[in-house]
Amino acid sequence: MNEFRPSPYSNLKVSILAGGVGGAKLVLGLDRILAPGNLSAIVNTGDDFTHFGLKICPDIDSVCYSLAGLANKSYGWGLEGETWNVADGLEALGAPTWFQLGDRDLATHLERTRLLGQGQQLSRIVRDFCARWGIVSRVLPMSDDEAPTLIETSSGMILPFQDYLVKEKAQPEISRILLHGGLEPRLLPEALDAIRDAALILIAPSNPWVSIDPILALEGVREALKEKFVVAVSPIIQGKAIKGPAAKMFTELGIQPSSLAVLRHYSELLDLFVYDSSDEPFSAKDAPSRIKTVQLQTIMTDEADKIQLAQAILDIFFKMNGQS
Amino acid sequence: MNEFRPSPYSNLKVSILAGGVGGAKLVLGLDRILAPGNLSAIVNTGDDFTHFGLKICPDIDSVCYSLAGLANKSYGWGLEGETWNVADGLEALGAPTWFQLGDRDLATHLERTRLLGQGQQLSRIVRDFCARWGIVSRVLPMSDDEAPTLIETSSGMILPFQDYLVKEKAQPEISRILLHGGLEPRLLPEALDAIRDAALILIAPSNPWVSIDPILALEGVREALKEKFVVAVSPIIQGKAIKGPAAKMFTELGIQPSSLAVLRHYSELLDLFVYDSSDEPFSAKDAPSRIKTVQLQTIMTDEADKIQLAQAILDIFFKMNGQS
Repeated sequence: MNEFRPSPYSNLKVSILAGGVGGAKLVLGLDRILAPGNLSAIVNTGDDFTHFGLKICPDIDSVCYSLAGLANKSYGWGLEGETWNVADGLEALGAPTWFQLGDRDLATHLERTRLLGQGQQLSRIVRDFCARWGIVSRVLPMSDDEAPTLIETSSGMILPFQDYLVKEKAQPEISRILLHGGLEPRLLPEALDAIRDAALILIAPSNPWVSIDPILALEGVREALKEKFVVAVSPIIQGKAIKGPAAKMFTELGIQPSSLAVLRHYSELLDLFVYDSSDEPFSAKDAPSRIKTVQLQTIMTDEADKIQLAQAILDIFFKMNGQS
Repeated sequence: MNEFRPSPYSNLKVSILAGGVGGAKLVLGLDRILAPGNLSAIVNTGDDFTHFGLKICPDIDSVCYSLAGLANKSYGWGLEGETWNVADGLEALGAPTWFQLGDRDLATHLERTRLLGQGQQLSRIVRDFCARWGIVSRVLPMSDDEAPTLIETSSGMILPFQDYLVKEKAQPEISRILLHGGLEPRLLPEALDAIRDAALILIAPSNPWVSIDPILALEGVREALKEKFVVAVSPIIQGKAIKGPAAKMFTELGIQPSSLAVLRHYSELLDLFVYDSSDEPFSAKDAPSRIKTVQLQTIMTDEADKIQLAQAILDIFFKMNGQS
């Protein structure tokens, strides 16, 4: 898959900030066209949680399974050809089944939990798993520290993110998002290096509130990004999210969901903003003039779509920077 | 299965001290002939350990799976019709595979771990699982506290029991057995009640050193047993154990393995000692005269064997106590 490499990309180092499903798609597209090892994905760990005693990292696993070619092709999560024998056993015991645990997926959670219990850092565990899965791009947890995203609902409840998203099906109205759960996680040093070493930074079309903001909120990230050429891809298309509660979150937080709202969310960081071709084009006064805006086909259904979007963004980057 | 109940047994309450595989066989035999609810199995938890972050209770699971009719009919452990998809995934990740984790079995470990994490006591969890599995006899962990059996080897290593038994295949020479791992676990109150309420106590043909001694070493057990009619069944037949390292342990601890050595091990507690018909009969001077010794068919290969041994022991108990 990595054999054809157009020459302009061969020395380009790219880092991408990403959440799970939507993020994984663009990570895959970039992985397939950049030279081996030139892509670093800095991945949200705010969704990570402990379930049945096991440490589960939904976004990291989505990115890794996608890069490894193991991701389920129908759902937005989990593994292709997955089986559910443990889940059947859990159901028979009356255990909670709101978070689906496939058999093969469980092996990942079990071994990760075992290694964490031995004192290994998450970043090292992910690196070793990636090596086993034949992944050449670097997958970096945003932090090796606990950094749970908590959702405060309008009824005053505070829910861990997976409880909100999966158990409660994102139904409760959000009043506030508590990034890092009141803790002070440290940015992974390798992630800071990956930002500094990259010529181009992407913000994946992930949920801005709960997939990207947890990364941006780590000390050192915004400062490092300000030195860089940063592109964001809107996860909102015609006022809706492809998947997940991003649009609903904008509304509940008092903002009309739109690609323009996404641009404004990231405004101070951006050099380039990509939104979907099917959207109403922005008018001249909508965006700050220093940010170039471009409409592209951003819906990625198969691998060709992912590569095409990645390639289109790189082409624009090179044109803007006079390198091709 | 529980429909035919010979009348002499209908009011008889029995408690049995048991380890895993060998113990589970006699527990099953008793379960099938006693009135529902009249059997309590007090089960060793010295083998319990944490693996991949999950709490695993080998002896309790062996007893429960056996009573529930779920036990694997070929191996001495695990579930019938088990699948190994998670184990395959673990192997692909390079995870340790010395302790075999079947998919269905994992569901038990996962839900137990989840409930323990919620602060539930092991005894309550076992009771609820038993209810789900349709088990009418009571299965009581010897303690709700941690009580790990540690094995000190002649080379000076100290191994948790499963590491010794499964990972090291019981190869290292034992110099000492450290019951309860230096902790002071409390006897489960319901287990003490079960001993007090029973007319007859059995010591199952389990490993005396590592399956039964951990129970006997809990404060209050020996005192309670001295008030009771106690029968032990020898796990050693013709100097060998049916399964497991019991005979090897006797030898390494300086005792010739034999059913007589088992009798002597429990001597102060016993009223009746059962050993296998194939053994050389004891001579009159071998055993204290207050202990009646009986030879029976103690090898239990199918359910009929288990019921037959249980019934034979109950018959002798009734004869000795003038009740039939």
